Amino acid sequence: MKKLKIGVLGATGAVGQEMLKILEEYDIPVAELRPLASARSAGSLIRFKGQDVAIQAATDESFEGLDFVLGAFRLEPDVPLVVPEINGADAFDNSGLIANPNCCTIIALMAVAGIARLSPIEKMIVCTYQAVSGAGQAGIAELNSQMAALANGEKPEVRTFAAQIAMNVIPFIDAPYGNDYTKEEMKMQNEGRRILHSPELKVNCTCVRVPVMRSHSIAVTLHTKEKVSVADARAAVAAFPGVRLIEDYEGRCYPTPLDTTDQDLVWVGRIREDLTDENGLTLWCCGDQIRKGAASNAVQILKLLAEKE
Amino acid sequence: MKKLKIGVLGATGAVGQEMLKILEEYDIPVAELRPLASARSAGSLIRFKGQDVAIQAATDESFEGLDFVLGAFRLEPDVPLVVPEINGADAFDNSGLIANPNCCTIIALMAVAGIARLSPIEKMIVCTYQAVSGAGQAGIAELNSQMAALANGEKPEVRTFAAQIAMNVIPFIDAPYGNDYTKEEMKMQNEGRRILHSPELKVNCTCVRVPVMRSHSIAVTLHTKEKVSVADARAAVAAFPGVRLIEDYEGRCYPTPLDTTDQDLVWVGRIREDLTDENGLTLWCCGDQIRKGAASNAVQILKLLAEKE
Repeated sequence: MKKLKIGVLGATGAVGQEMLKILEEYDIPVAELRPLASARSAGSLIRFKGQDVAIQAATDESFEGLDFVLGAFRLEPDVPLVVPEINGADAFDNSGLIANPNCCTIIALMAVAGIARLSPIEKMIVCTYQAVSGAGQAGIAELNSQMAALANGEKPEVRTFAAQIAMNVIPFIDAPYGNDYTKEEMKMQNEGRRILHSPELKVNCTCVRVPVMRSHSIAVTLHTKEKVSVADARAAVAAFPGVRLIEDYEGRCYPTPLDTTDQDLVWVGRIREDLTDENGLTLWCCGDQIRKGAASNAVQILKLLAEKE
Repeated sequence: MKKLKIGVLGATGAVGQEMLKILEEYDIPVAELRPLASARSAGSLIRFKGQDVAIQAATDESFEGLDFVLGAFRLEPDVPLVVPEINGADAFDNSGLIANPNCCTIIALMAVAGIARLSPIEKMIVCTYQAVSGAGQAGIAELNSQMAALANGEKPEVRTFAAQIAMNVIPFIDAPYGNDYTKEEMKMQNEGRRILHSPELKVNCTCVRVPVMRSHSIAVTLHTKEKVSVADARAAVAAFPGVRLIEDYEGRCYPTPLDTTDQDLVWVGRIREDLTDENGLTLWCCGDQIRKGAASNAVQILKLLAEKE
């Protein structure tokens, strides 16, 4: 792989910081690293591969001369949405921009993509248990400060989330979409259709914030066109790259979000028949929101593109 | 109502203590209160209606002379399972024993029973977010001690649950049922059939423990025989006794488990169409596990029976 000039937009955020860490971990050959952030952070030093690098204020000229820029982009209709293990080939059909899908979409689709190769998934009912890191540093800080307040017998302050998140759960993430679902919930269908190349896919999603630091957990019930047996589904999940099937982990048949923290694999367990649907399966998955849900997926896309050049 | 002689089995447990509190709150006329527990607690005093009452060790003779005994009974096939607002009439068809349903079953069915009266519910997909109080005092103590350990930078000790519950979620409650579901999960179908008088009801349930103290939250997607509009479903839920419809509570269209703590109503919000099913609806509900999920429901059954005598 040739040495790359890489920009990281939002280099001081939770995902940006993890991207820097993962660029090192994956041993991506870097000719120049350009960390970009708001003017407020300009001049601060970050450590990358043993060197101090100054953060620059992001401006229109910040991308000049770079091979790749990593960061959070809004979804444009023409930008490919890529999860390398699922639809890596789509990454090559780009006009300069490639987007990371939503974190829950990445984790849920990683869990079910092996099954979708056995028979197309037509419908999914999804309930999420989402970590506070999905709201960035502010979300992490809010859970930490509320936990500390409770431990001291004080009343927790609510700033970032709509209600107290410590010792509570909040069944509403992002803004209303206009159909009684939230924008976050509709991404599972809208992005899922594009990533799985299934324009008819129907998804009913309920997104819920839970007091967990940085791994999302997701319960998925799916309906396939032809029946897929539990045994075949387990084999397909186990064989899928980037996924770990949990049938016995410390005596448990399931992962928890603490288990999947600070690593890249999506762990899947509790694969079983849907008792309400002949062609249905139900499963449970967990994945690190900051890593595979965001930073690692982006660096994996970069790696995929760079290796083909 | 005549004055009653009432025994409370497990009077020192989380639910037993709440039962004593609710017997006072509901102003049940009590001629004698007999708190029963293990021999270890015998002789300890509890406070009831301004008087000290000694706990007695539960033996075969403990129930003699009592009009009612409240406690946790195992499910026997012939014992009616009663949620007074849903199937109160079943309480009168008993041979001395009436059982409280499972706490999640009570809360989920309270939320959907109004809709079931518009058209029979044929299928439900259920995901729970269950409080630690479902595991009794030990569950509450475990979350408290793990929170304190984390606040002090110590490693939390795991005793009651299969994994750390603070800052984590655990997708497995109770023991295996034998079909890749847990016993807790199968109660939603097995008990739901009896309480709704729907022997064909099919339920796919995923039960998950979350780090919340004492209110359960439940996401339900249901399929009715005939289509029920969202507007009709909202009206039916709002009109159902014991339920509060949340369409705007402090600017939110949903309850959280903290909102429903220490009161009897089941709060329901986010009623919307199921995007995967023409005859489907999805909703979110929360209810206090110790109260409506256990103690209040039991005292309500007692009240129902006593008032008819």
